[in-house]
Amino acid sequence: MALAADLSSKWILVSEPMPHVLHIELARNPVNAFSAEFWREYGALFDRIVSEGRDVRAAVLSSAIPKLFTAGIDLADAAKITTGGLHGEAKVDGARGSLALLRDIKDFQYAIGAPERCQFPVIVAVHGLVLGLGVDIIAACDVRYAAEGSQFSIKEVDIGLAADVGTLAYLPKITGNHSLMREMAYSAAIFSATDAERMGLISRIIPGGRTEVIAAALALAGVIAGKSPVAVSGTKRILLHSRDHSVADNLEYTAAWNAAALQTQDIPETLAAVKARRAPKFAPLRHAKL
Amino acid sequence: MALAADLSSKWILVSEPMPHVLHIELARNPVNAFSAEFWREYGALFDRIVSEGRDVRAAVLSSAIPKLFTAGIDLADAAKITTGGLHGEAKVDGARGSLALLRDIKDFQYAIGAPERCQFPVIVAVHGLVLGLGVDIIAACDVRYAAEGSQFSIKEVDIGLAADVGTLAYLPKITGNHSLMREMAYSAAIFSATDAERMGLISRIIPGGRTEVIAAALALAGVIAGKSPVAVSGTKRILLHSRDHSVADNLEYTAAWNAAALQTQDIPETLAAVKARRAPKFAPLRHAKL
Amino acid sequence: MALAADLSSKWILVSEPMPHVLHIELARNPVNAFSAEFWREYGALFDRIVSEGRDVRAAVLSSAIPKLFTAGIDLADAAKITTGGLHGEAKVDGARGSLALLRDIKDFQYAIGAPERCQFPVIVAVHGLVLGLGVDIIAACDVRYAAEGSQFSIKEVDIGLAADVGTLAYLPKITGNHSLMREMAYSAAIFSATDAERMGLISRIIPGGRTEVIAAALALAGVIAGKSPVAVSGTKRILLHSRDHSVADNLEYTAAWNAAALQTQDIPETLAAVKARRAPKFAPLRHAKL
Amino acid sequence: MALAADLSSKWILVSEPMPHVLHIELARNPVNAFSAEFWREYGALFDRIVSEGRDVRAAVLSSAIPKLFTAGIDLADAAKITTGGLHGEAKVDGARGSLALLRDIKDFQYAIGAPERCQFPVIVAVHGLVLGLGVDIIAACDVRYAAEGSQFSIKEVDIGLAADVGTLAYLPKITGNHSLMREMAYSAAIFSATDAERMGLISRIIPGGRTEVIAAALALAGVIAGKSPVAVSGTKRILLHSRDHSVADNLEYTAAWNAAALQTQDIPETLAAVKARRAPKFAPLRHAKL
Amino acid sequence: MALAADLSSKWILVSEPMPHVLHIELARNPVNAFSAEFWREYGALFDRIVSEGRDVRAAVLSSAIPKLFTAGIDLADAAKITTGGLHGEAKVDGARGSLALLRDIKDFQYAIGAPERCQFPVIVAVHGLVLGLGVDIIAACDVRYAAEGSQFSIKEVDIGLAADVGTLAYLPKITGNHSLMREMAYSAAIFSATDAERMGLISRIIPGGRTEVIAAALALAGVIAGKSPVAVSGTKRILLHSRDHSVADNLEYTAAWNAAALQTQDIPETLAAVKARRAPKFAPLRHAKL
Amino acid sequence: MALAADLSSKWILVSEPMPHVLHIELARNPVNAFSAEFWREYGALFDRIVSEGRDVRAAVLSSAIPKLFTAGIDLADAAKITTGGLHGEAKVDGARGSLALLRDIKDFQYAIGAPERCQFPVIVAVHGLVLGLGVDIIAACDVRYAAEGSQFSIKEVDIGLAADVGTLAYLPKITGNHSLMREMAYSAAIFSATDAERMGLISRIIPGGRTEVIAAALALAGVIAGKSPVAVSGTKRILLHSRDHSVADNLEYTAAWNAAALQTQDIPETLAAVKARRAPKFAPLRHAKL
Repeated sequence: MALAADLSSKWILVSEPMPHVLHIELARNPVNAFSAEFWREYGALFDRIVSEGRDVRAAVLSSAIPKLFTAGIDLADAAKITTGGLHGEAKVDGARGSLALLRDIKDFQYAIGAPERCQFPVIVAVHGLVLGLGVDIIAACDVRYAAEGSQFSIKEVDIGLAADVGTLAYLPKITGNHSLMREMAYSAAIFSATDAERMGLISRIIPGGRTEVIAAALALAGVIAGKSPVAVSGTKRILLHSRDHSVADNLEYTAAWNAAALQTQDIPETLAAVKARRAPKFAPLRHAKL
Repeated sequence: MALAADLSSKWILVSEPMPHVLHIELARNPVNAFSAEFWREYGALFDRIVSEGRDVRAAVLSSAIPKLFTAGIDLADAAKITTGGLHGEAKVDGARGSLALLRDIKDFQYAIGAPERCQFPVIVAVHGLVLGLGVDIIAACDVRYAAEGSQFSIKEVDIGLAADVGTLAYLPKITGNHSLMREMAYSAAIFSATDAERMGLISRIIPGGRTEVIAAALALAGVIAGKSPVAVSGTKRILLHSRDHSVADNLEYTAAWNAAALQTQDIPETLAAVKARRAPKFAPLRHAKL
Repeated sequence: MALAADLSSKWILVSEPMPHVLHIELARNPVNAFSAEFWREYGALFDRIVSEGRDVRAAVLSSAIPKLFTAGIDLADAAKITTGGLHGEAKVDGARGSLALLRDIKDFQYAIGAPERCQFPVIVAVHGLVLGLGVDIIAACDVRYAAEGSQFSIKEVDIGLAADVGTLAYLPKITGNHSLMREMAYSAAIFSATDAERMGLISRIIPGGRTEVIAAALALAGVIAGKSPVAVSGTKRILLHSRDHSVADNLEYTAAWNAAALQTQDIPETLAAVKARRAPKFAPLRHAKL
Repeated sequence: MALAADLSSKWILVSEPMPHVLHIELARNPVNAFSAEFWREYGALFDRIVSEGRDVRAAVLSSAIPKLFTAGIDLADAAKITTGGLHGEAKVDGARGSLALLRDIKDFQYAIGAPERCQFPVIVAVHGLVLGLGVDIIAACDVRYAAEGSQFSIKEVDIGLAADVGTLAYLPKITGNHSLMREMAYSAAIFSATDAERMGLISRIIPGGRTEVIAAALALAGVIAGKSPVAVSGTKRILLHSRDHSVADNLEYTAAWNAAALQTQDIPETLAAVKARRAPKFAPLRHAKL
Repeated sequence: MALAADLSSKWILVSEPMPHVLHIELARNPVNAFSAEFWREYGALFDRIVSEGRDVRAAVLSSAIPKLFTAGIDLADAAKITTGGLHGEAKVDGARGSLALLRDIKDFQYAIGAPERCQFPVIVAVHGLVLGLGVDIIAACDVRYAAEGSQFSIKEVDIGLAADVGTLAYLPKITGNHSLMREMAYSAAIFSATDAERMGLISRIIPGGRTEVIAAALALAGVIAGKSPVAVSGTKRILLHSRDHSVADNLEYTAAWNAAALQTQDIPETLAAVKARRAPKFAPLRHAKL
Repeated sequence: MALAADLSSKWILVSEPMPHVLHIELARNPVNAFSAEFWREYGALFDRIVSEGRDVRAAVLSSAIPKLFTAGIDLADAAKITTGGLHGEAKVDGARGSLALLRDIKDFQYAIGAPERCQFPVIVAVHGLVLGLGVDIIAACDVRYAAEGSQFSIKEVDIGLAADVGTLAYLPKITGNHSLMREMAYSAAIFSATDAERMGLISRIIPGGRTEVIAAALALAGVIAGKSPVAVSGTKRILLHSRDHSVADNLEYTAAWNAAALQTQDIPETLAAVKARRAPKFAPLRHAKL
């Protein structure tokens, strides 16, 4: 099946800059503000790639808006939440309103967590502002690159709420300085790419702007796309498991996983390719929900 | 209820340098050595703030002693432990002595962990030496600032014991370099603020000394105190949960939490304040044990 | 029992450069490639030290090969796996082959995890290349030092498989930048000591080469060997527990542990030694499996 | 929205015997054998009820086949699995075949676990044979009633595999005699309703046959449908959480949940109804995925 | 310290029917309805026994009201909750009201869970009705005896809420028939002592009424009080840990615990007493919070 | 390799009453008292069967002593523990003694837990007294049968200690009445086979004595030995995992496991055998540590 053809939608552009690599661009003018419709579209894209079994081996996520990655949630939507506009139930009963909200939060979490359900790594390349929901979005991706001059903010407290679709769930596990991370989460301060790197949130700062950071991310995607998809998808699945389980539990799970995965032809193929000094060729791995 | 009036006690000074912000100073001359009486006083202070429902939105913890944060546990007390002086039970029976010790360790852990039970962030500002128990104390706080020239040591092995009131429980979760952290835990080496930052233990090094680091911490506290207390306290609670649970478990918990918390008036208030270019005003949030 | 006498084996040299300290050198020419026989020998060495109760208080692991730490797994062995050469069962039945593989993976994990079962810290000092299995090996140690110019690679995807004996289980827990760590795990890229330090994988970069990094590691080992073995072994056990459990669970476990361990004579001995300005003397702690 | 209208499908009959109660009947002649198409239809039914927000407050699941509940999986499908007929990938590569199987197993688990995602209790009423997959199906329901003479078998080992869509995951948690449960899981023995009750698998044995057990289940469904849907759905969600978490974790989650749910009008309504000696009336609770 | 003297309070009678055994009787006429004041008194009693270090080795909890154990929560209090009468915060803001409720729920849970914090077993002896909160209360005790004719109901759904102070947290772990348990939790049905026993909720049905069941419980308490308090309190602590952790985690914790506890003189004392055919004598074990 | 030849040792008789079935008899006169030497022999037997890859498909464990299963631990050994006779370390230092004890407890736990590391089910057939360690031993087996008249006691508190090698770790998970179980654990009461069955500890009571219960257990072993060893060993492994993990975690693990295991020839073989109305034949499954 064609990799990117027809995957583009209302506010998301999808292209295939090189074999097995998708480039996914957020393109809702003027500031990539996420309305409910937009985040549903976002989650649905990844789930569609998975369910249709396209032979994607790496993806890059970036913004098509020149000046920023995203300003975060669309405040018009946020306002509706508290006026009960989204849920008739809220008018009936406080509890029914709360339970309706709970459903929405879970749907929202499910959409933003979609990159985790892909078997291929998702590399996010940010530039400019990465506000509020932007941090939730990048936290659910595998690898984060930032253009110099990028600015981040865990903005949610500034509109009176605790981040609930990923930032607070992921950051304590994927970064290495809780003191700095909590400082940013409590204060909603804008922080630089340098602070993001110090915190352990991003791999590296790419000199230049949007073009350069996307190029760097695509280069990494290209490297990954040249590797065995059995190996890369297994690595992703095991790393996600490891993040949430003890070492002993993870080793047990990994042993079961690799007992099957080591039967792959990708191992003799890579060994043969090394010997012959040629690039290995790998059969597609139909996409699996992780 | 007045925020700080009468909270000061034998060895702890409490003031209210700005609205909703407490400044808590450890002041047991000459070196802030922690006797059992002192750490009980320390834990009781935080628990009292919580139980009395004072409208605190951020707190700064520092030392009133010019030359250091703390030298750690009072060795006179440590000596009593091993001679059985604290527990008559030890004379009856090795096991009864052990069980009495176990009770004391749990009480000690409970006191040192008190900042976690506050709904507001606790920012610790250290200078000079931070030895032994000092590391346990700061590890249980939310944010850590260090004056340049601060020196740290996980001193416990130097008196023949493994740290048991927080350091070894928290550090593997809140820092980002286990190799460096274990090196310090096994060797009791003195390490610099620079190494503390490399390890991920502190947010940043503040140029200057005691005055400057306290000023920086109070500035952060002031920012946080201006945010919605519903949002900040929810953020703290969710981050503590996230540290100790899987991503999936945390998202489930967060959804339940926010289903209630999103009903706050702080959201429309912040949105309105932004529109009107004024500071938002938030009702007090009676203090809850987390 | 003599500390190092007769511990050396086919490809591993063991010496006792100072009291209570072992130096363990990997010495399989030309590149320390790990065949099944070699990793079994590796695991058996640590288990033997433990079971024989030698009075070791710290160990340094390094390579005796001048140009590198290890090239990783012996590809001849890896090739046998996929041709079923190791397991007759694979010819009978895909499932029986898988289950036989699973047994082997668990044995392999058990051997590489052996340093965790020692009551003393293991400090690894690397130089040159640290490829594939080399990363699994160092991840299971306590402290990691690297000579400048060291180069690392999570090489497994390059031979078509997901790392399954430690790297993916440990790295998400012991490092502080998941973005950088996953980037390396998916791409099998060579990364520098500087990147290893940024990721939080190593304590520090030691200027110089093999000689200098071993000297630095031995110096640390010497410091640790001078501390109370009750305190150091308890610290190790509690840190391993903490890595895999919640703060609350770990504090509970630690209280039970220290209720017994605080009865040690090492506490009064250290206090007395400090007073008398002499080095403390500690009785041996018969070696326990952790 | 009408409760049952048009929910019936190829092999599943759905009716609404009383307000807010669904009766779901499995009706694939001759023995309710579950092909992949049938279990997909089964899972989709529950997910559709949830997503369409129908005002269901309890459901009864039973068999429309007079002589049995189900003979389990359709062996024609099982045969295809091992010949690779379902997955072209298996011909390419053992690992790709395994990973394709893994996807199928997870889809299968998701379908059979669908009753857990409903906010209302599902009561299963069995008669005659309940073989293999039949045990997985009933284990994922809330309440199990059996007609006298019902016979059960954890049949999977008899076709050479370990049950993988629920039986082995649920039974250790929902029954009270592991010895008896494991005996049945290892031997594939047929066991009586009496043994099922002894094991703790069923609530009670209903004298009579299909008609009587369905009547008893519907009576219970009717009682439950008369209760506050906020209370019943909260009870279900909390019980599912409790099964899989520690007491402390569950109490924490429950407190967050009820902080929102206690705002329901169902509480004053029930109190008023009791006073007035009338039946309470509850607003619909739009259906939420649990 | 005298065992029972002065422990009696407004609605709770405490006596010492035999050495080291407390009898605690709930005595709030006419139906032991639990107002907030009553459950606070209940929790405080156990916490006081613990903190004062009384030499209690077993306790029996029963009702002083001839016709029933308890009718559950005081509905006057329940009504106040939903009208916001308890919390001024609810008038300010939905979220603040929810957070205030959350505090109350946690306090309530803490009080009802107090028997778990005692080092001695608490045996509850019920007769007559055990409604709503009554089930939460007995679930947090160690052993449950019921007089024939006792009747139970998980009554909460009948007032529109999910049980949140213990029943739903404990029952899935301490009983052996989830089907029957959920049936009762969803339907609020009255169930007999026979069903309670079938479910695994009670140890046994005692023929007779209040007098007989109390006598049986006291007899058991007397037996337990004759055992080593080190052994009994260790058994309780380990069983509570085991309920909430994996087998591997529990064995690890138990080993640490018993490493200290096996040093007790109670072992040689019991061995000597057996030899001499006399009753062993045990030193008091100062009471510890578990 | 011959199944049972030469497996018999000092106090354990091993025979092969039918193909692929081992009968293991405890035979230390006069009362099967477990000295350290005996429990080491016990654990070593199972580990040897596993490591030597014998084609065992089920085992029965029973006592060769006509009047009882076991009187439990050898009190001579227990006495040595508390006098420090086993560990010279205890004389040096309380902590070193405790740590030495801790090592012993872990070795003891490892030996008694050996049946869990076998890939085949272990059925225990008891008669007469099953005291103390006897309960730990049977708790670690898969299936428990008891002759009528069998009597059990969790005897440990009667010698002043908490059971630490299995009873308290397993019983809360494998039985269905915590009230009854704790009653027995606290009181050391003798309980009947009927109470053991009520508690959920045993599958069933076999009329008659030692001969009959062994015959029944062997009959079950024979049935199990006729099933696919891939299916039975997978079932055991998954059930053990399920006991200690959440439903979601277990389903994830099971999917990985079966992705490999479903490739077995045992599935077509069983389907073919059913068609041909013959017994299926299965290749040996070399023994794996679970």
